[in-house]
Amino acid sequence: MTVFYNGNFIAKKDVKISPDDRGFLFGDGVYEVVRSYFGCLFMFNEHINRLNYSLKQLNINFKYSERLENIVRELIEINDFEKKDGVVYLQITRGCAPRSLKYPEGELEPTVYITLNEINPDYYSYKYGIKASLVDDIRWQRCDIKSVNLLANVIAHNQAVEKGSKIGLFVKNGIITEGTHVGLFGVKDNELITHPSDNQILPSITRGVIFNLCNKLNITITEQAIRPENVYNLDELFIVGTSPEIAPVIFLDNKKMGNGTPGTITVMLQQAFSKLIRDCQKIQ
Amino acid sequence: MTVFYNGNFIAKKDVKISPDDRGFLFGDGVYEVVRSYFGCLFMFNEHINRLNYSLKQLNINFKYSERLENIVRELIEINDFEKKDGVVYLQITRGCAPRSLKYPEGELEPTVYITLNEINPDYYSYKYGIKASLVDDIRWQRCDIKSVNLLANVIAHNQAVEKGSKIGLFVKNGIITEGTHVGLFGVKDNELITHPSDNQILPSITRGVIFNLCNKLNITITEQAIRPENVYNLDELFIVGTSPEIAPVIFLDNKKMGNGTPGTITVMLQQAFSKLIRDCQKIQ
Repeated sequence: MTVFYNGNFIAKKDVKISPDDRGFLFGDGVYEVVRSYFGCLFMFNEHINRLNYSLKQLNINFKYSERLENIVRELIEINDFEKKDGVVYLQITRGCAPRSLKYPEGELEPTVYITLNEINPDYYSYKYGIKASLVDDIRWQRCDIKSVNLLANVIAHNQAVEKGSKIGLFVKNGIITEGTHVGLFGVKDNELITHPSDNQILPSITRGVIFNLCNKLNITITEQAIRPENVYNLDELFIVGTSPEIAPVIFLDNKKMGNGTPGTITVMLQQAFSKLIRDCQKIQ
Repeated sequence: MTVFYNGNFIAKKDVKISPDDRGFLFGDGVYEVVRSYFGCLFMFNEHINRLNYSLKQLNINFKYSERLENIVRELIEINDFEKKDGVVYLQITRGCAPRSLKYPEGELEPTVYITLNEINPDYYSYKYGIKASLVDDIRWQRCDIKSVNLLANVIAHNQAVEKGSKIGLFVKNGIITEGTHVGLFGVKDNELITHPSDNQILPSITRGVIFNLCNKLNITITEQAIRPENVYNLDELFIVGTSPEIAPVIFLDNKKMGNGTPGTITVMLQQAFSKLIRDCQKIQ
């Protein structure tokens, strides 16, 4: 695998992250995961906009965002990813400096690491739905920043896995915020419900796609948090994300959601989403 | 500088952290900073106990904690740190695996990185006191784990620095929890007040030392959070930590604490603390 690391296309095995990298020492960095459907970069600009937002929130002075698309396209070519379903992983840290919480004096060169990972889409979950579990949301108060401080997500996700679930749904202060690494929507009486976009959730790119699709399909979305005590009253529940796209949640902590099969609205949105992907692949 | 990395004593420049290291990808690791007063390791066992606690909380299966002291002593010898005032920095991450929030299947070899950093003790702050600022505590809910997910600390510390302060004091839900990388004590009527040891603060090793000293000196400690609206009613305020030891806070956000000079109890504890260090150096 050839990756991009600090200006060079090199073999992944030759990447040498410094122990002074603030990504390693503090998790002082941000990342993005972009889907590459056989070389078709889906919602790339939206991902880069969010990357820029995260960088700005952390005052990381990265100047080359506009070069990222070319770099990624070159990586896809070098690694033959036009023939593979994959994701692009981009991580940018503040850079290397002697260990101190204080931002280093002067200009610091951010660390840039970009790689590709092949994925095997989980068609079963997509078609038949998944089991999810409610888990404590112990994350910090800036979940809108896509940082690599992901330990709370790691812990929560593995709590869900231990319960036999594919995914965890975060609960904080009596409300469900989002999934451990995905967005979340409920459906009630043919209308969508989802947590408002604030500092408690990541502004999911797929969420944005769902909003656009609903606009076209005349489906109303209410931005309101779902409470655990009301979740089983929903008709449908589904997660959204770059890898799973849209996956129905049919079991939540061993109790059926709706009638335990993928719901009508969920399936309708999956179909509309699939069309977007086909259109994207036609263009490229 | 020779460091210890995954079983070997090597030049720091040769350390090659993998981009698959979960420390780099998720901040999925823990650390400790131990003071080495010219080769005298201060409270080493207490630091290792806390390291083991952090590892256990995260289910990181590190088996060689009992070997760390020998490794650190060898590092001190190799780098001539018997002649230097320094700190030992130890970081252990879950190890390397393809990127997934899910814990990797099977046994994973944790990444172990240990280095030494020379320090120049801040005698001025120690003697004359420091300025601190109140900052939002936006950290996660497991501050008792000394993990490398330190972005909230980084942000808060730099907010304090921007205000011209040496340190930030975290405020969460209307109470002062602790410093951005140190413990915190108030003094009122010759008694100490500090936040209870729970998931909102790191169990500071120096805090433990203070508790022992107060026990010997017959100073009462009340474990109770200080509220910002009451902080200026305190007679004294001081921070504690591995690097600063005990430093008086004489200004808080441009307002004097007490009479704006180091308080009697603070100075008494500094002296008792210095004696401990001298004793430690005599023994070794």
